[in-house]
Amino acid sequence: MSEPVLKALILAGGSGTRFWPLSRARRPKQLLVLDGDESLLARTVRRLEPLVASADIWVCTTRALAEQVSEQLPEVPTDQILAEPEGRDTAPAIAWSLDRMEARDDVVAVLPADHRVRDESSFRATLSLAAEFVRTRDRVMTLGVLPRWAEPGFGYLELGEVEDANLGVRRVAAFKEKPDLETAERYLESGNHLWNAGIFVFRGGRLLELISEHEPELSDGLAKIREQPGDLDRNYGRLPKISIDFAVMEKCRDLATLPLDCEWSDLGSWAALAEIMEADSAGNATRGRVVTLDARDNLLLADEGTIAAVGVSGLVVIRTGDVVLVVSKEQTEKIKELVDLLARGESEDLL
Amino acid sequence: MSEPVLKALILAGGSGTRFWPLSRARRPKQLLVLDGDESLLARTVRRLEPLVASADIWVCTTRALAEQVSEQLPEVPTDQILAEPEGRDTAPAIAWSLDRMEARDDVVAVLPADHRVRDESSFRATLSLAAEFVRTRDRVMTLGVLPRWAEPGFGYLELGEVEDANLGVRRVAAFKEKPDLETAERYLESGNHLWNAGIFVFRGGRLLELISEHEPELSDGLAKIREQPGDLDRNYGRLPKISIDFAVMEKCRDLATLPLDCEWSDLGSWAALAEIMEADSAGNATRGRVVTLDARDNLLLADEGTIAAVGVSGLVVIRTGDVVLVVSKEQTEKIKELVDLLARGESEDLL
Repeated sequence: MSEPVLKALILAGGSGTRFWPLSRARRPKQLLVLDGDESLLARTVRRLEPLVASADIWVCTTRALAEQVSEQLPEVPTDQILAEPEGRDTAPAIAWSLDRMEARDDVVAVLPADHRVRDESSFRATLSLAAEFVRTRDRVMTLGVLPRWAEPGFGYLELGEVEDANLGVRRVAAFKEKPDLETAERYLESGNHLWNAGIFVFRGGRLLELISEHEPELSDGLAKIREQPGDLDRNYGRLPKISIDFAVMEKCRDLATLPLDCEWSDLGSWAALAEIMEADSAGNATRGRVVTLDARDNLLLADEGTIAAVGVSGLVVIRTGDVVLVVSKEQTEKIKELVDLLARGESEDLL
Repeated sequence: MSEPVLKALILAGGSGTRFWPLSRARRPKQLLVLDGDESLLARTVRRLEPLVASADIWVCTTRALAEQVSEQLPEVPTDQILAEPEGRDTAPAIAWSLDRMEARDDVVAVLPADHRVRDESSFRATLSLAAEFVRTRDRVMTLGVLPRWAEPGFGYLELGEVEDANLGVRRVAAFKEKPDLETAERYLESGNHLWNAGIFVFRGGRLLELISEHEPELSDGLAKIREQPGDLDRNYGRLPKISIDFAVMEKCRDLATLPLDCEWSDLGSWAALAEIMEADSAGNATRGRVVTLDARDNLLLADEGTIAAVGVSGLVVIRTGDVVLVVSKEQTEKIKELVDLLARGESEDLL
């Protein structure tokens, strides 16, 4: 069987505060070098390239980030770096990008720009199977991740009937919101649930049909953008701000899925980063110039200057040019609140 | 009774690592602004001035620090800033300075440059009484501090017989090395012990006599320095490296003392600094640009940039231009070991 032709659409418009102070308003997570020696975005492209040539890769980002994205991805043709006038969540980003890609007849994989995959060949093998399934059956697929622990922080896909025993494709019975820990443990034991990783494969035209069916306001808005090319900003700003999960996927009855088994991480927090980094014998994961004494199980990341840690444990210490953040590993979720505090105070320069 | 004429000799040649990374080889503790808005050295001079005019203040430091000392003390005549070729502990520093001060007939108070005194008028009142006692009786005095808690980190003076009930002067019965906690508690309860604060008052000639009696090698070395003014460096480098306590005070049978009751602190560690700084309602003592969220009982000092602390407690975080130190308050004594580590590694720039 020949390899199906596959285009990739990488969603790189996200913003967020979970990696503050390394991530900033103008330098969000996907542009950061968190793991390895290139940005998460650059790594996402490199991960695809054996399967999808850079000539077939599109990146959707916001206008504010487009220049940095281009600089990080010299191999991707500039006119395939699509700059939204503003971020309006994933459904408008995907729909508008499919229009710009002229991808009605192509198989398209939509991928987040800020995840981490350790077993990249396994990742590509599964993506390739999914593309083949889409090409032969014209179905919409969402790839889920085989859970490795009971994680209450993720959404889940509940598996339904087997659709293709050879490929391992199953129907998605339901989307499950973030569960409590007990439910997450049940999901893990059942073997019947996958982590929702926000990775989709479909024929472009098929997804646009589903958008038209389930989110007609978005389809109408896209039509207006097509008709009034000089008025992009105004019309884009009026598109419904909605995720592709809410707009389409959760309403689509015959979604199919394949499990990814590739040591995936969403790198959702400093603590998650600490878990996947190599640590020294005392459990300290470090980057940059760091010196420790009687310190255990810390994440110590010196983007500039030196960090010295003495007699402390379970901490995240992040040192940038202007800020040092010291936070307990167990409380990294409070960083968002801290950044909100800064935004309300006279600290615009730190955002 | 007329105020006795009093000269001051401030010992400002010390080095040390307890305030690393703010203190550095070329910027030791006495030159730092730790408490208030001027350096400990500048504050030491200002504390004396109502009692001792700056024309009567001498400062002994090392050659490496002399320029910085001069800059910090524009009111002290430049030729009264005495620069040792190298640091050889306090006995040579005091003896050589007394020679340079031509203070054989003067009452001299020797004071460390890096302590903190909250009640400065009480401090001066006690110093003034001591000077009067020395002027009338020609005795050597060491001023001890009335203990406020059972501190095992200090040396103690054991009080002997009352020498002058009016002034409150007592004889020093013995010097006591740093005690264990139990002994320190006994000292505190007894009311019969003072913290040894390294503050001395004497007639210059009298101290030189005692040095000649108890540490003749030092006297001989000083004589050589006098005879061979062109060979200062070589002769100074051969002086015995010894503290004034060991060389003279502990051997002197008729040492007198007066208790200082002035909220004194030796500022011996970051934790000691934290104790005397004002804290916010959550117990965080901060300086510089600092933001906290659910953080308790920390010392957060941003010499440059910003410190953000989230969900942490009992920490010392010091941010300088090139280094951030994160250390548990209970383990600040390990900083010395850390700096030794840096010295052995390729980290000369951080010393």
